[in-house]
Amino acid sequence: MTLAWIDHAIRQPDTASMEAATERQAMLTKPPGALGRLEALAVRLAGLLGTERPDIAKMAICVFAGDHGVAARGVSAFPQAVTAEMVKNFARGGAAISVLAALHGARLEIVNLGTLGDTSGVPGVRNLDLGKGTRDFTAEPAMTAGQLALALEAGRDAVGNVDLFIGGEMGIGNTTSATALACALLNLPASVLAGPGTGLDGDGVVRKIQVIRQALDFHPQVADEPLEVLRRLGGFEIAALVGAYIHCGQRGVPVLVDGFISTVAALLATRLQPVLADWLLYAHRSAEPGHRRVLDALQAEPLLDLDMRLGEGSGAAVALPILQQACALHNGMATFAEAAVSSVSE
Amino acid sequence: MTLAWIDHAIRQPDTASMEAATERQAMLTKPPGALGRLEALAVRLAGLLGTERPDIAKMAICVFAGDHGVAARGVSAFPQAVTAEMVKNFARGGAAISVLAALHGARLEIVNLGTLGDTSGVPGVRNLDLGKGTRDFTAEPAMTAGQLALALEAGRDAVGNVDLFIGGEMGIGNTTSATALACALLNLPASVLAGPGTGLDGDGVVRKIQVIRQALDFHPQVADEPLEVLRRLGGFEIAALVGAYIHCGQRGVPVLVDGFISTVAALLATRLQPVLADWLLYAHRSAEPGHRRVLDALQAEPLLDLDMRLGEGSGAAVALPILQQACALHNGMATFAEAAVSSVSE
Repeated sequence: MTLAWIDHAIRQPDTASMEAATERQAMLTKPPGALGRLEALAVRLAGLLGTERPDIAKMAICVFAGDHGVAARGVSAFPQAVTAEMVKNFARGGAAISVLAALHGARLEIVNLGTLGDTSGVPGVRNLDLGKGTRDFTAEPAMTAGQLALALEAGRDAVGNVDLFIGGEMGIGNTTSATALACALLNLPASVLAGPGTGLDGDGVVRKIQVIRQALDFHPQVADEPLEVLRRLGGFEIAALVGAYIHCGQRGVPVLVDGFISTVAALLATRLQPVLADWLLYAHRSAEPGHRRVLDALQAEPLLDLDMRLGEGSGAAVALPILQQACALHNGMATFAEAAVSSVSE
Repeated sequence: MTLAWIDHAIRQPDTASMEAATERQAMLTKPPGALGRLEALAVRLAGLLGTERPDIAKMAICVFAGDHGVAARGVSAFPQAVTAEMVKNFARGGAAISVLAALHGARLEIVNLGTLGDTSGVPGVRNLDLGKGTRDFTAEPAMTAGQLALALEAGRDAVGNVDLFIGGEMGIGNTTSATALACALLNLPASVLAGPGTGLDGDGVVRKIQVIRQALDFHPQVADEPLEVLRRLGGFEIAALVGAYIHCGQRGVPVLVDGFISTVAALLATRLQPVLADWLLYAHRSAEPGHRRVLDALQAEPLLDLDMRLGEGSGAAVALPILQQACALHNGMATFAEAAVSSVSE
């Protein structure tokens, strides 16, 4: 088992396609710039998909699930059993991400990396059994090196041959893990980044801050070793997101990043491979207060701000039509010449 | 010809459906509130469509076009011929709104109320021939009482039997008209509300401000007579939007309001019928700087902020999937009981 693949080269966007797409945008029947961010999106997707006329036909949404040892410390409004219960709900079509995937015709894959509850035999769920959740990272590393490697590979192997990848996550306690990761990578205190997650009250947030502080005190400061930060403070599903994002950049698949936890995975992935940033589009600004800080650190300007905070990839799925619209407008609008429309007054 | 219909009662949202939808939201397999604004949207649409499980199946997008006498004063980056040229482009499928309507399966109607250019005989365009544009409102009222009444009625008659109405507009010079209307209704100076529209440079904006000032000086202050403000400073297509919005409230059709010009029409319509506000959803915050002020006056919180400034109904069409997603999630997600998922920890 080796992690050498993590360092394989990230592809570069195709600048010729971007230039051609930029020229095309200037000829379409609208005042220059009038489609705002949709114009830049179309040009960017042209570069990522390597064609003047980008199209997002094949989309994969992959939800990674895993339990967190730290959940035993009372950092979530929900019991830990919910992780596996929701995995079943994803597979049966009842969860938000299931509804959105079906609505948009995206393939939905569900990978259970290791939960307390058993989802073996559930149709539509791939079970990897890395363990019954991670260890409580206030007292020991969350994962072994072997677990980390397998989780990263699970993400890598989930990407497939698509035009757009959305990663989702499910894991009771995983805003605590993501917040601890962000604190370690950004060198910020827990009090700045911690929030209510699925719905903690004020006392709960105070407890969560204490738990994260305890974890940050326990572990050596290794912010310059992102994989070690991930092994110590992360989760199976977060590591899978990191592996998936890196592989997307390596094989040339644009990523639409979801909310707080996914963005922390993106932060970690770009610490491993800075040029990966080219491949990461940010879907939305979550209601989780720390999200804004992590987005700022990534210089990311998400497309939506709808006060969502569900995870599962749901925010990315809600933003997906914006990418499709950007492509459809770019490809389908007439040029001034084609439509015999007069251009800007001289 | 009478405008008595304008005062006919606006329907009230169905509170029983809203209550049932609110109860359903609380049972769906997600932390309470985790879908953010999508939850409130689903509940609101339940009230407007009068069912616990709202669905936007039939959508109409109607683009109203008209020319503006004030365009002769050099207030647009584009020549006036573009209005009729774009009407043809709408009908042939080459414009942004045509592409978006096709993408989302919405019916697209095009009503030319009166342009300099001739679009008679163009398939898919309804021509009303109210005049070759309005009069230059710096020196006389933009419309006669008869033209105003016909334009309002054209909007009323365009709504039809749908689950959602989107109004669009096309008219070179119409940000000048909309800005003048907003100045008159909100008692704000032109310098606060005027912006570049389709792409004026700094000198152009200064000229536009002077033109609007001149118009506001010329006309008596009649802010408490919204129809007279509309007749004096408005345009055919803006009056049609006002008529359409009011009729939507009267027959119980939710409206997704587009950008700056449409929002000014909404401001005017709610001055005529304040309770109409219940029926108006706001799609996006446009890059046109005055839009923010008008939205604030309406206490409107739009769904998107993508720096768009095209008009045509394009911003509303881009926001349309958010309403569809809100409904799909509300109707399609499993409840905690159905999915056997544990709820919040006690």
